[in-house]
Amino acid sequence: MQNIFSETFIISAMILSALWTISAQEKDSPALQTARRNLMPVPASVNWKDGRLPVTKSFTVAVKGQTDERLKSYIFRVMRRMEGRIVAEFSRELSNDSANATLLIETASTSKIFPALGDDESYKLEIDGKQAKLTASTTVGAMRGLETFLQLLEGDREGFYFPAVSIADQPRFPWRGLMIDSARHYQPMEVLKRNLDAMAAVKLNVLHWHLTEDQGFRIESKKFPRLHEMGSDGLFYTQEEVREIIKYSADRGIRVVPEFDMPGHATAWLVGHPELASAPGPYKIERGAGIFDPTLDPTRKETYKFLEVFFKEMAQLFPDKYMHIGGDENEGKQWDANPKIQAFMKENNIKNNHELQTYFNKQLLKFLQKDDKIMMGWDEIFQPDLPKDVVIHSWRGQKALAEAAKQGYRGVLSNGYYIDLIFPAAQHYAVDPLPADTTLSAEEQKRILGGEATMWSEWVSPETIDSRIWSRTAAIAERFWSRREVNEPEDMYRRLAVIDSQLEELGLMHRKNQAMMLRRLTQNRDISALQTLVSIIEPVKEYKRYQVRPQTMLSPLTGLIDAARPDAEAARNFNRRVEEMLADEKFSASSDEIQSALTKWSNAGAKLVPLMENSPALTEAKPLAQDLQKLAAIGLEAFTFIKSKNAPSAEWRDKQFAELDQIAKPKAALEFAVVSPVRLLISAAFEMPNRKNMSAAEWRERIRKSAAPNAPPKN
Amino acid sequence: MQNIFSETFIISAMILSALWTISAQEKDSPALQTARRNLMPVPASVNWKDGRLPVTKSFTVAVKGQTDERLKSYIFRVMRRMEGRIVAEFSRELSNDSANATLLIETASTSKIFPALGDDESYKLEIDGKQAKLTASTTVGAMRGLETFLQLLEGDREGFYFPAVSIADQPRFPWRGLMIDSARHYQPMEVLKRNLDAMAAVKLNVLHWHLTEDQGFRIESKKFPRLHEMGSDGLFYTQEEVREIIKYSADRGIRVVPEFDMPGHATAWLVGHPELASAPGPYKIERGAGIFDPTLDPTRKETYKFLEVFFKEMAQLFPDKYMHIGGDENEGKQWDANPKIQAFMKENNIKNNHELQTYFNKQLLKFLQKDDKIMMGWDEIFQPDLPKDVVIHSWRGQKALAEAAKQGYRGVLSNGYYIDLIFPAAQHYAVDPLPADTTLSAEEQKRILGGEATMWSEWVSPETIDSRIWSRTAAIAERFWSRREVNEPEDMYRRLAVIDSQLEELGLMHRKNQAMMLRRLTQNRDISALQTLVSIIEPVKEYKRYQVRPQTMLSPLTGLIDAARPDAEAARNFNRRVEEMLADEKFSASSDEIQSALTKWSNAGAKLVPLMENSPALTEAKPLAQDLQKLAAIGLEAFTFIKSKNAPSAEWRDKQFAELDQIAKPKAALEFAVVSPVRLLISAAFEMPNRKNMSAAEWRERIRKSAAPNAPPKN
Repeated sequence: MQNIFSETFIISAMILSALWTISAQEKDSPALQTARRNLMPVPASVNWKDGRLPVTKSFTVAVKGQTDERLKSYIFRVMRRMEGRIVAEFSRELSNDSANATLLIETASTSKIFPALGDDESYKLEIDGKQAKLTASTTVGAMRGLETFLQLLEGDREGFYFPAVSIADQPRFPWRGLMIDSARHYQPMEVLKRNLDAMAAVKLNVLHWHLTEDQGFRIESKKFPRLHEMGSDGLFYTQEEVREIIKYSADRGIRVVPEFDMPGHATAWLVGHPELASAPGPYKIERGAGIFDPTLDPTRKETYKFLEVFFKEMAQLFPDKYMHIGGDENEGKQWDANPKIQAFMKENNIKNNHELQTYFNKQLLKFLQKDDKIMMGWDEIFQPDLPKDVVIHSWRGQKALAEAAKQGYRGVLSNGYYIDLIFPAAQHYAVDPLPADTTLSAEEQKRILGGEATMWSEWVSPETIDSRIWSRTAAIAERFWSRREVNEPEDMYRRLAVIDSQLEELGLMHRKNQAMMLRRLTQNRDISALQTLVSIIEPVKEYKRYQVRPQTMLSPLTGLIDAARPDAEAARNFNRRVEEMLADEKFSASSDEIQSALTKWSNAGAKLVPLMENSPALTEAKPLAQDLQKLAAIGLEAFTFIKSKNAPSAEWRDKQFAELDQIAKPKAALEFAVVSPVRLLISAAFEMPNRKNMSAAEWRERIRKSAAPNAPPKN
Repeated sequence: MQNIFSETFIISAMILSALWTISAQEKDSPALQTARRNLMPVPASVNWKDGRLPVTKSFTVAVKGQTDERLKSYIFRVMRRMEGRIVAEFSRELSNDSANATLLIETASTSKIFPALGDDESYKLEIDGKQAKLTASTTVGAMRGLETFLQLLEGDREGFYFPAVSIADQPRFPWRGLMIDSARHYQPMEVLKRNLDAMAAVKLNVLHWHLTEDQGFRIESKKFPRLHEMGSDGLFYTQEEVREIIKYSADRGIRVVPEFDMPGHATAWLVGHPELASAPGPYKIERGAGIFDPTLDPTRKETYKFLEVFFKEMAQLFPDKYMHIGGDENEGKQWDANPKIQAFMKENNIKNNHELQTYFNKQLLKFLQKDDKIMMGWDEIFQPDLPKDVVIHSWRGQKALAEAAKQGYRGVLSNGYYIDLIFPAAQHYAVDPLPADTTLSAEEQKRILGGEATMWSEWVSPETIDSRIWSRTAAIAERFWSRREVNEPEDMYRRLAVIDSQLEELGLMHRKNQAMMLRRLTQNRDISALQTLVSIIEPVKEYKRYQVRPQTMLSPLTGLIDAARPDAEAARNFNRRVEEMLADEKFSASSDEIQSALTKWSNAGAKLVPLMENSPALTEAKPLAQDLQKLAAIGLEAFTFIKSKNAPSAEWRDKQFAELDQIAKPKAALEFAVVSPVRLLISAAFEMPNRKNMSAAEWRERIRKSAAPNAPPKN
């Protein structure tokens, strides 16, 4: 599920536009900051009040109404996290004193063991100087409220406290998922568990578990043990482990929707069962990345006999009503080449491969219906004569999804939320499953169930997966939960930085593994210069890694590209500082920070060259060290022009732009995330003489145009 | 098992002596460094040769002789770690081409599934420009050799390589253990597994698993399920998990010796089985730390019936021949107070509690012998009429151990290796299970089997335990494996720094969790100043934490004391820099580093005060921030005197010393590890006028004396 059209992602434009709209937003910022504090996702309604509820070690929780074990465990887990932050020990018992407990929780109904689509997740939270009161109809609602409650915890000179507030909250969409691909790279149980904890922390409610692929069959089948025994290199989840994950998820109000991708993406099935294939075997587990030919044979009865038994086994294992059959990227090459399949198509008046796949899906549908499951699949399964309860999962985009909705089908959006593509959080954040300009009727709009971030795992290991999922997925979670109007990237990033750190308390490795990886790359030399470099570079985006760095699923993911994180925070901060300086008439705002950042890059670059020469694992990154020095030199020179108000020549400007064009090219599959602001500095230096003749807005527009890559206006 | 006499630990003396003997060692250092490279533990015999074996992605391994699955898996794990460092993918198959494989492994005999005391762990490793050849009699020997092989991997401008060398190696002691206390704080499976990987990396071969305590009964008993059900808060290892740990250990050549501590340290047993106690119940799981009264009743037949069944169950679960029955710290208060027990003693002519405990042990011994197990216990069980195969585990020290050896008993030393006491690695490293001045005969010496580092877990959580075990335990592992003469602390620390980083590739959190913990403490504010502070402070030593910071087993271990690591590396480096400067006649060696360190402390201190004021979890640490500023000011002033060769007055000196005495006092249960070198700077400044009248050695001696706490010589 990977072919996203690159046109949908117009990064540079986005970054520039974000950059130039900051000042407009900043007018609102203090208000926004007060309004939202650190809440993510932002609740549906928040009214701040005067007062605060102090938190000491005598913090207690009482529960009224129903109290099931799941709720109790959730409360105690939240208390452990609070204790960790406060460094104080709370009572291990719930309080019986509703009137005086610090937090009083009231839930109306007992809830089902397993969450289901459409469960009531709403809650209300009222905090005053005496007590916090959380009310919800369901256990899951109370869980969502507890996470909001924890995000409200603050500390200052007077100690820890909760601000007085009145919150009424419920999600915008009922389907808010994270897909984890456990197939291309197997992810151990503890990786799944800590990510489930993080999902609950940002109110996601579906783990879409991608379990079978060309590169691995990751789930034990007791009916057909050759599937996992021969298709997984021994890296699979036992059914007991699957039940453990389902329970762990349910305890956090998260559904588990398994995906068994077919008829394509099926090589690993065929290692143990070549008789299912559309071409003769034998088959080996696929080690490469991409789209491969092996496909199930949709024309043989034996295939369906097998799948009927298999789905029945899985239907009994997974309690959720929905089952994902994949269906994507079947190019049908084995079908085209198989005379028997061709003959079958003629006999049955099946005109093309798409129709043949639809025929296949309809057979699956029968089994699923018998097992009391609802079928879900990627865009390719969409076919107007499917029953209306089928759910379309769209990697193609909002239009495809809207089209399905118009025809009565429900859908979930993943286009725009492909976190494996290394785009910045703001880009995903800007994609709405149901945009403001939708042409869908109110009735049709209800069919848009929500969305899913997709963690395809070609290039993630247990060591790096957290850094690819988090914290960007928290921004996507907000998109699915909060109102459409909650969409300012700057305020999102401010809150995201707080969440990024809070997620660490759940055991996530997204931040802390980086230094370890850099130490390994340098054989334990001083990594400070390397940290400076890695803080402003990012892995190449989209599918470029496949092209510039051919690797297999067995390659170690321990390189500099793996240590680098998407959406480099230091780069974003530098961008902002440059914007602030240029927006200031005297060019002094943020100017110290800019100079000190540029100087730091320059020093780091000088140290990096010898370090990289002596670290064979970093040899290929040496050009980045040289570029860092150049980038710093160019930036410092432009900075000096601006500060001295002496404009450089057009030749100087063009030479720097040309140099930057070289620097902007990826090396070692990494690219600088600070080329745009340095371009702005050059452009601003050159445009200095025009500053006084123009309004601030005009000047900005001129700089922006003159800085646009490959289009500096002639003077 | 905690009451170690503090006299055995004379830290300040050790540090000073280490400090002042560096220059003597440094003469040997380059040779030592070449001789040892990064090997830890140092092999029995190493002969470096000319040449190098380059490593590329075409690295292959062939195996001759027997190849069991354990060896194959070990080889592949080592290859994965190499791949991680090299960032290149090796073949997934063993090579059939013995002559041309990069590494050829030959092992003579197939080996037993479970390792046993006395297994042959020797190996030979020959590397030349064409091939590395590893030979061993056993699979376990090959595992040890593979870890040495991996430690030899180096990289430089020409790429990765193994240096040509001829190594013949075997351990000095056959029992090289790490005790993990899973009882006071339960440690999840993945914590045990990553620590087992680390144990194997430094050639430790015994996991002593402390499973029962006052604070928890952590192992499933199918015979008496009330034990774990009521005694563990649900935090216990199932028997399946225990088997998993035993297999995981065996696959790494590590024995698992379980400890069921009795008759004291038994509260958790009694929650579900109060009838076993020497005083009426009911009992609750103990939450405090210390020595508690609840004790098994050694006078009732029912106790023995119970224990016979229990030990039989455990004997079947644990394959190792040795079983640890604890036996420590039974103060017998419940026995004294129980008239029935007193009557029993009279009847049976048992004179005191020690004899009663011996009576108890003899009953246990019968069961263990029936189960074909050998009994092991702490010093207290020692009694001259026990059978000679009983193993004495000594927390009392070498003398007690030697005494037992003289009487024919074998013993294992843990006194000196109590890593929970937060002493520096060098201190543990200096303790030899069999010191050079031993009075034992050759025959008696053989009875000293080795030693065990003990990770008592009162104050460690899954988040912090790695930082308490590693990397100091690697130095202890070297003490147990390498010759007695391998004992220079400076060279040990040089190699330890490398191992410290290599251990991270096994998933250990000892380094990477610190920044995360600091971020949590500051609510995600800038932690750089806090990192500077924490790099030169250490938790209070020995049992001071119990006194200054009363906590329970349920308290969060997320404070600054938990983030701080033992044996602060930056402090040690500062110590060395001061020593280097004072040893230099012109006082210029290392003087830039000293000044920049002191300036860094000063800046950090200034930033820390407001940070701590706004971070309620750090409020108690504010005096440390103030002290940091003072310490820096004093150091800088002394430094200025020294550099300018102007001596300060005695009043100035005394005032600074008095100030340092205040700074040296622990605050927030933390103490500075750089007070001694700052004292040296003060003392050196004051003694400047004497410099030219004395030999370098005389002057040093004078400074050393004048800097000794509470004893500055009058001028």
